[in-house]
Amino acid sequence: MSKLVIVGTVAFDAIETPFGKTDKILGGAATYIGISASNFAVDGAIVSVVGGDFPKEYISMLEEKGMNVDGLEIVEEGKTFFWSGKYHNDMNSRDTLATELNVLADFNPVVPQEYKDAEVVMLGNLHPIVQMGVIEQMNNPKLIVLDTMNFWMDCALEDLKKVIAKVDVITINDEEARQLSGEYSLVTAAAKIMKMGPKYVVIKKGEHGALLFHKDDIFYAPALPLAEVFDPTGAGDTFAGGFSGYLAKTGDFSYENMKTALIYGSALASFCVEKFGTERMLKLSKKEVHQRLQQFKSLTQFDIELT
Amino acid sequence: MSKLVIVGTVAFDAIETPFGKTDKILGGAATYIGISASNFAVDGAIVSVVGGDFPKEYISMLEEKGMNVDGLEIVEEGKTFFWSGKYHNDMNSRDTLATELNVLADFNPVVPQEYKDAEVVMLGNLHPIVQMGVIEQMNNPKLIVLDTMNFWMDCALEDLKKVIAKVDVITINDEEARQLSGEYSLVTAAAKIMKMGPKYVVIKKGEHGALLFHKDDIFYAPALPLAEVFDPTGAGDTFAGGFSGYLAKTGDFSYENMKTALIYGSALASFCVEKFGTERMLKLSKKEVHQRLQQFKSLTQFDIELT
Repeated sequence: MSKLVIVGTVAFDAIETPFGKTDKILGGAATYIGISASNFAVDGAIVSVVGGDFPKEYISMLEEKGMNVDGLEIVEEGKTFFWSGKYHNDMNSRDTLATELNVLADFNPVVPQEYKDAEVVMLGNLHPIVQMGVIEQMNNPKLIVLDTMNFWMDCALEDLKKVIAKVDVITINDEEARQLSGEYSLVTAAAKIMKMGPKYVVIKKGEHGALLFHKDDIFYAPALPLAEVFDPTGAGDTFAGGFSGYLAKTGDFSYENMKTALIYGSALASFCVEKFGTERMLKLSKKEVHQRLQQFKSLTQFDIELT
Repeated sequence: MSKLVIVGTVAFDAIETPFGKTDKILGGAATYIGISASNFAVDGAIVSVVGGDFPKEYISMLEEKGMNVDGLEIVEEGKTFFWSGKYHNDMNSRDTLATELNVLADFNPVVPQEYKDAEVVMLGNLHPIVQMGVIEQMNNPKLIVLDTMNFWMDCALEDLKKVIAKVDVITINDEEARQLSGEYSLVTAAAKIMKMGPKYVVIKKGEHGALLFHKDDIFYAPALPLAEVFDPTGAGDTFAGGFSGYLAKTGDFSYENMKTALIYGSALASFCVEKFGTERMLKLSKKEVHQRLQQFKSLTQFDIELT
């Protein structure tokens, strides 16, 4: 089974949407990535840190999902990273109400010895110095996927650029692509970002789907139009988990296969937003995933005779 | 050859974009629709009105494109409808600088006798009372497609609703769909609009593509990601012209064929924005259209094994 190393936050989230609010619930980029990637037959390992306040049953759940947690450091005297946010009525924008780094402030990631030869590395959203620390511990991985966000472009751009230079795929949203490149057109933005290192650029556009750029080629994965988006938290990470999980499982890192990975990522993300936090993803059946992939096919397939 | 009746404005436009500005150039919904539909073997007729100031060579051009202009009234003592607008830097929003109705103020559309039995009617953006006037002159058309905009929702909603109740397909943009339905989710909005009459709802999302809704089915036509959008004027009308022109040519008004029509509309609209006004559309070759349709195929096609 292919090995997949996942680095990112494991956290508590408190979320408020027009549909309701939660107390502290399970969250974090690595959590969502791991749960999403567990839909594929991969040998995944989560590299992250939590405090002594982190419930043991959450860790058991990740293990039951097939995730190795030897790289999940527990700082007994510390507190787990906490994020709190409130979504606006359109669900496309949100205010961050609180960010408590806690144990994340001094995190030094350690990749377990038996995962240093993993084929695929998924760098979830975290400080680029931490992401680079993981890259440096790896023994020649075949594919490194980077997810990041505007926060690091604002406050750690030089560190981020060093990571970008080392990765094969970068996934960011449209506004972040514009910020990183200084270009409004996503086509021009992607071309500039490819010059910074990655051979593949994935631009996530939320309800408008995602674009995959490679050389002069473009592929467009739609988002499934939904009657109701309940909570967008974790959708991007779930996408990244589906994308990297599918690639790790197949071991095929071609452009053609990356298109399919993009569809898997989009399909899984479309479930994530249906309930608060990880709730929907934890109760996902193979049959439901299968049906949703069928929906993506019927959403985009058309007949045209080109003579 | 199938007959296609096109009603809409024939106008002068003065356009300002970040790339430059024009004097009064050829514009208008029916103009763009007609030029776009002329890419298909259809017998089209334009029903509209211009003033004595409208250049004869523009009319000759429309005739050369295969459009019958017997229903294009010329009010010799009047002035042609004039619109002037300025696009913002993001090209997604614009300010209207001037709207001079002129001869449009007293327009009574007359469908030429030999086009009253047309199979397809394309109602381009105009006052809903004018659109209704055209419907009433038609002898049992097989398909009526309506394009409209928020302006009529603001100032002639009841008239507009009567037209909507009579049509098979409505094409509007995402904000207009939300305004018309009072629903934020486009899925819910489309469901509500279908209850108002149309069996098919097309929601245009500009650079994010277009959605086709029919019963519980959804189809997503992407927009071609472009390095540069030079002038968006007429893109929606060009889309409508490609959509209705393809349907008229094939005479197949099924959901499956409408998907293909959506792709044709999107492909033609992707040319329109490459130059000011109608410039690009007037110099379009069959080979270029063919190549762009290929691009739409590679943009959306993927392999997935569902076992």
